[in-house]
Amino acid sequence: METWDAIRSRRNVRVFSERAIDESDLARVLEAGRRAPSSRNWQPWDFIVVTDRPQLVALAEVWRSAGHVARAAAAVAFVGPVLESDANRDWLWFDHGQAMMSMMIAAADLGIGSGHAAVADQELARTILGHPEDRFCVALMSLGYPQDRALAPLQRPDRRPFDEVVHGGRW
Amino acid sequence: METWDAIRSRRNVRVFSERAIDESDLARVLEAGRRAPSSRNWQPWDFIVVTDRPQLVALAEVWRSAGHVARAAAAVAFVGPVLESDANRDWLWFDHGQAMMSMMIAAADLGIGSGHAAVADQELARTILGHPEDRFCVALMSLGYPQDRALAPLQRPDRRPFDEVVHGGRW
Repeated sequence: METWDAIRSRRNVRVFSERAIDESDLARVLEAGRRAPSSRNWQPWDFIVVTDRPQLVALAEVWRSAGHVARAAAAVAFVGPVLESDANRDWLWFDHGQAMMSMMIAAADLGIGSGHAAVADQELARTILGHPEDRFCVALMSLGYPQDRALAPLQRPDRRPFDEVVHGGRW
Repeated sequence: METWDAIRSRRNVRVFSERAIDESDLARVLEAGRRAPSSRNWQPWDFIVVTDRPQLVALAEVWRSAGHVARAAAAVAFVGPVLESDANRDWLWFDHGQAMMSMMIAAADLGIGSGHAAVADQELARTILGHPEDRFCVALMSLGYPQDRALAPLQRPDRRPFDEVVHGGRW
């Protein structure tokens, strides 16, 4: 798909069809995240891919609004280092945002929908995913083909108007 | 350009040619940011676009490694709200990362290179950009056509190996 179409086709998808995601497509989505830029190229991430249904159902319990993970074809857990100081905290989150966005655009390009979830219960996430104590789960991304309608460029995204968001030269 | 090519073509560009960016191309890059997803769709961003050379040169002083901004065809300042509590801080940075990544992929699709800069001197940034006291500058993105070579898919990105970064099912 043309890049501009993929960017405009990405939307939050939280209801997925039964269709599985081909392994090579899943690998491409993850590769997009691996290639994402990060502060001084520190790459503060590991990605745990979950496709097992009982594991997805368990993972959906880590946050009150993560129910869509239970019904996804796959989920990716974004895991980052527990930082000793706050100095790099903002960039850790910024960089995970970059990696997730890159994956979501790569997914949209393949017709695969995606949705975010936060992780409130870190200990439950650790039990399910097995990452060590010096890591935590930053966020989850669910993936799957949309049940309602195929992805297509959104003509009127639910966003603040361009002229309000974009300032020329000065505020 | 195909999405997968644009994602693999994006690289940090910090040396730019003299070529200006067409206004419609700049608008498309900004539109990609405007469409980015954010926590509960709060869209915690304003984008200030700078193309005036003296203003770019001034902006390059906000951080020791922001020199590339001075020579860019354009820069985008990502401005966010000063938060009253830390509760949403992580998501603010995460969401700005998503918006920046979306813009960078949209830029790569057009052959436009991009580079990040942090903002250490917030008061200088405010003087140059004019945003109000209840906002701060999260980051800068410089844009321009690469001076060295055109963007093309990177075959061997400088990243940790796929099999180290990606874990199947569990850590």
